[in-house]
Amino acid sequence: MKFNITQPQQEIHGELVNKINNKTKPLGALGMLEALALKIGLIQQTLTPEFLQPTMLVFAGDHGIVEAGVSPYPQAVTAQMVSNFLQGGAAINVFTKQNNMCLLVIDSGVNHDFLPNAYLIDVKIAPGTRNFLLEPAMALFQCEQALKRGAEIAKAQIAEGCNIFGFGEMGIGNTSSASCLMSVLCDLPIEQCVGRGTGLDDAGLAHKTKILAQAIKLHHLDGADAMQVLTTFGGFEIAMMVGAMLQAAEKKCTLLIDGFITTAALLVAAKLQPEILHYCIFSHSSNESGHQKMLDFLQAKPLLNIGLRLGEGTGAALAYPLVLAAVNFLNNMASFESASVSQATDSQASAS
Amino acid sequence: MKFNITQPQQEIHGELVNKINNKTKPLGALGMLEALALKIGLIQQTLTPEFLQPTMLVFAGDHGIVEAGVSPYPQAVTAQMVSNFLQGGAAINVFTKQNNMCLLVIDSGVNHDFLPNAYLIDVKIAPGTRNFLLEPAMALFQCEQALKRGAEIAKAQIAEGCNIFGFGEMGIGNTSSASCLMSVLCDLPIEQCVGRGTGLDDAGLAHKTKILAQAIKLHHLDGADAMQVLTTFGGFEIAMMVGAMLQAAEKKCTLLIDGFITTAALLVAAKLQPEILHYCIFSHSSNESGHQKMLDFLQAKPLLNIGLRLGEGTGAALAYPLVLAAVNFLNNMASFESASVSQATDSQASAS
Repeated sequence: MKFNITQPQQEIHGELVNKINNKTKPLGALGMLEALALKIGLIQQTLTPEFLQPTMLVFAGDHGIVEAGVSPYPQAVTAQMVSNFLQGGAAINVFTKQNNMCLLVIDSGVNHDFLPNAYLIDVKIAPGTRNFLLEPAMALFQCEQALKRGAEIAKAQIAEGCNIFGFGEMGIGNTSSASCLMSVLCDLPIEQCVGRGTGLDDAGLAHKTKILAQAIKLHHLDGADAMQVLTTFGGFEIAMMVGAMLQAAEKKCTLLIDGFITTAALLVAAKLQPEILHYCIFSHSSNESGHQKMLDFLQAKPLLNIGLRLGEGTGAALAYPLVLAAVNFLNNMASFESASVSQATDSQASAS
Repeated sequence: MKFNITQPQQEIHGELVNKINNKTKPLGALGMLEALALKIGLIQQTLTPEFLQPTMLVFAGDHGIVEAGVSPYPQAVTAQMVSNFLQGGAAINVFTKQNNMCLLVIDSGVNHDFLPNAYLIDVKIAPGTRNFLLEPAMALFQCEQALKRGAEIAKAQIAEGCNIFGFGEMGIGNTSSASCLMSVLCDLPIEQCVGRGTGLDDAGLAHKTKILAQAIKLHHLDGADAMQVLTTFGGFEIAMMVGAMLQAAEKKCTLLIDGFITTAALLVAAKLQPEILHYCIFSHSSNESGHQKMLDFLQAKPLLNIGLRLGEGTGAALAYPLVLAAVNFLNNMASFESASVSQATDSQASAS
């Protein structure tokens, strides 16, 4: 699957900066919101950007690696939580509803057959990946299929008018998958990439680290071949998310990146198409050990740092009002001129 | 003026923690939102808290100290920005509107007479304070009057159904006022309390620091007498905010604290009635040098750190959706039991 992601054109850059600087506030006083307004203006190539049909895509899949005891939760929880999403009871339901985002749940590869539901997209590749401690998690054709289906989902939403996506996930075992992707793609020792996931204690963490080190040694991959790395360690939900991200960026949408697993998917996408980063807003720094290092690797400055480690897209949904605020101040604040407010005098003079 | 602020009763604490822990998420996975949910449940003494008529009170006043050249903006900007608030063009208008908060602008002591306006409360004490480089900023009776009027404003809103307040301010020169309050009340050298305000350069900052050091030396106050410190260095907008904060906490409302000046007002309020802190949520850490130290002094952990330094209540308005999210997850997320989701097994076992 080929994507053609290009950096936003820069011609409008100066005009955007001027518009931001002439709002009735001291220069730079809105901090990161000003950088966001500039970024979104560039993405949409307009001085008056707007978000249409903000949509949270939550990809779910099961992982063969759970056989190795890397999570304190049983695999059945993936399906149970997807049912919870479909019934409206999870954190991501609450936060997307609060912030007026659409929510779609994608069965990328859950080990359960769900009844049809208006919020469910069933594009299951297989009922879970294989155990990458023994063999690659998926076949290359499955990985390619996952990317393609993810791209199609994004494309369909864009056709309906959506121009901003949040990305989230559910999959017991998927912090293990993400840790391996991170280790190989960022070329960092696995110890720096492993965290407690849903809540391992010290012994559980040590076990998980040992297992993942073993898996990485077994496959001995070159980080330059992102598709092979994804095929080997990825979950179906991660691969499908990669496809959706690439498609969304190609179509010049804004991408809200969530936590550890979503950022791992973006690592893969950025390895394939580095220009995707121009379209990404990093919603938060998770409490999952390793996420901040992943963000550093991407030179990303997240909006929130409030100790979240839930996934599902919750960080992206919670950060969305800040992103919206960036667009709203750009569109709706008065300028010094329009509000007849005096500008700062030369501070040398005023301080004399 | 006497206030009687008491710590929320703790009987409901265990039940609240249980409710939070039984939501369908790993223990603690919503980070600071969980601590917020607990705090708000305690404030409202219920397992199902809700926010009613969230209201942003923006207090405005002018400062005699601007004669000493401590701001790069002319004093007229206070009145111009109040007019901007009343016309809906400022950042605080945009952000309160986005997040469904009511906005009230209080003329506590602006050097300008405004035409009547539905959003304006005219309770002006005087058209600006005196220059505290030469004499106390206000008379004690003015300070007491400001507290009383602030309390009355809060009381009136509470009578109309409001149970959560954001606090913001506007006043050219008021970072100088706040820096002096901080220095004396926190017993910190003025150099650690002074910042660039609306945008002083190095020379301007050095001048401001020199002026404020001089003022502090002149009055030579004891930090234990918060009313005298407020009378000497405070602005009318700050004093009025102190009164509103104390009244709101006495009535068991939730208080959203904004940036440097608002936190300085809270320093005064907390010196008068330390129990007020049980009712406060700290919205952000400002880029104004000194704010983080003030927050440390109060042992406060703010929600946002996105480089804001605008005041007006903008940080409080931007953080409000996170505070609302805490209440919403507590009320609307399913429990493990209600959603039939399996809980974590002992991780020792799973990791074996």
